[in-house]
Amino acid sequence: MAEYRSIRERYGLLEMFKNPELSAEVTLQPVKAFSVDAAIIFADILLPLEGMGAGFEFAQGEGPVIHRPVRTAADANALRVAHPEEDLGYVLKALELVRKELNGEVALIGFAGAPFTLASYMIEGRSSRSFLLTKKMMYEQRRVWDKIMSKLAETITAYLLAQFKAGAQVLQLFDSWVGCLAPTDYREFVLPYSQTILQALRQAGVPSIHFGTATADLLPLMRAAGGDIIGIDWRTGLDVAWSRVGEGAGVQGNLDPVTLFAPWQLLAARAKEILDRAGGRPGHVFNVGHGILPATPVDSVKRLADFVHEHR
Amino acid sequence: MAEYRSIRERYGLLEMFKNPELSAEVTLQPVKAFSVDAAIIFADILLPLEGMGAGFEFAQGEGPVIHRPVRTAADANALRVAHPEEDLGYVLKALELVRKELNGEVALIGFAGAPFTLASYMIEGRSSRSFLLTKKMMYEQRRVWDKIMSKLAETITAYLLAQFKAGAQVLQLFDSWVGCLAPTDYREFVLPYSQTILQALRQAGVPSIHFGTATADLLPLMRAAGGDIIGIDWRTGLDVAWSRVGEGAGVQGNLDPVTLFAPWQLLAARAKEILDRAGGRPGHVFNVGHGILPATPVDSVKRLADFVHEHR
Repeated sequence: MAEYRSIRERYGLLEMFKNPELSAEVTLQPVKAFSVDAAIIFADILLPLEGMGAGFEFAQGEGPVIHRPVRTAADANALRVAHPEEDLGYVLKALELVRKELNGEVALIGFAGAPFTLASYMIEGRSSRSFLLTKKMMYEQRRVWDKIMSKLAETITAYLLAQFKAGAQVLQLFDSWVGCLAPTDYREFVLPYSQTILQALRQAGVPSIHFGTATADLLPLMRAAGGDIIGIDWRTGLDVAWSRVGEGAGVQGNLDPVTLFAPWQLLAARAKEILDRAGGRPGHVFNVGHGILPATPVDSVKRLADFVHEHR
Repeated sequence: MAEYRSIRERYGLLEMFKNPELSAEVTLQPVKAFSVDAAIIFADILLPLEGMGAGFEFAQGEGPVIHRPVRTAADANALRVAHPEEDLGYVLKALELVRKELNGEVALIGFAGAPFTLASYMIEGRSSRSFLLTKKMMYEQRRVWDKIMSKLAETITAYLLAQFKAGAQVLQLFDSWVGCLAPTDYREFVLPYSQTILQALRQAGVPSIHFGTATADLLPLMRAAGGDIIGIDWRTGLDVAWSRVGEGAGVQGNLDPVTLFAPWQLLAARAKEILDRAGGRPGHVFNVGHGILPATPVDSVKRLADFVHEHR
């Protein structure tokens, strides 16, 4: 959006995240431009890494770079459990500001990265294709892995509960890269930690969304870990995904974000297919199946939001 | 393998592919070192791009770079259908040499990249995460897309049939990145082209393997496109994948290649799980679910091959 780019030109990404007024403004931009039912706070899943002592930056053209990758027992021991109010108070403040502005008319979603996805950034030091170092640690250094995952689960639980307290009405756990795992590895090395977080949210009485990509056959396990809504990407038909998730949970998804670049006729057909597969069942949150891409045509997003409201 | 690295130190990758004696030697190295039932020719899926006029190189540290990316109608029109004997004779020669050496004791697998995966390299110009340019062309420039895919299908069909003639006993079609597509997009934009190739192989009487990654819910469509064996990655339990593939086809897979870095006890447990899920049914080819990684411990590969033979 032009409104976003005009701010982005003047500030660094981290600078924007750490400025609650700017974050609130950016969060509200799509709410003002499109007929959406919810806003998601402008933040990044990596923000808690700073308070944990790993440090990171968004390097020009190559995505996030972790300053002190976590690869040994000593590294894992040195990690701190972040304190939401002290380390991430700027996100909480932004949530308060947005919640006030939304005035109860549009729901406010808070979020955090899930332990596996954050651990993968910490261990690899950057984005990865093979997740070699992450999986090697899982397999070879079980105790170090468990220490990292425990500290992450504790950090994320406190952070999400603080977001709830600050005004978030729904909390999303982003396990963006967990789809690189075999189901057996997910069950053994990841599920218990995501479960800790999602159970705490349930006990606090806040609805949760549990999301990942390429998770076709992890869906039953992700549901077992928790989440009132399971987020799915476009790689699985919505009805098929929902049957794997099972009774008692909703689904969020699942348009390929690149389809927003398609001519309207094709985009509308794909959106209609998703609504048809949902079949009017309660518990479907229409959404793209992963983050929206930078050059996405704004007008297509607008038409899509209207189309979904007309055809739901 | 040390034997491989000592050759690789002295030659560039393309130089090795284009030298049939070296390619044959490298192909035979794992056959000599491990108790494997088949050898796969040492080559790269991108080799046909040169004869098609796109050109490429393996850039240090960043993977393949296409010299003349294909993004317009004019680019697509300028593409040639490669001629296997003229443009890829060095692969055919290597197959002849290897087939002779194997002496009928170990099967020889030839292969090619599938149209979608090769088109994605041609259009993006390099590896991609979002496949934005590729999908945009699919959606926005249907005729250009169809022209590229047609020329690729024609090139690949001729190339694979020539490999059969040169001595390959099984042919594998690698659609490595097709798992980035929604099932509906696969059916509409990709299936017909892969089908053309796989039907031609069936008519020629040569067994085929049809492989992709992150294809959990593409498996029934990939089977519809063709392939006597469907290759699957580790993201789906082998029994679940096989039931999606359906009756009448076998499956190849599906160990996570990174599990080869794990301590033996864990690696053996994962291999045993795959064999248990196959349940002794005929038509299971044990393999890793994607390419083996450079630093893989050679001893683990050796133990795994022996383990599978003992426990199958």
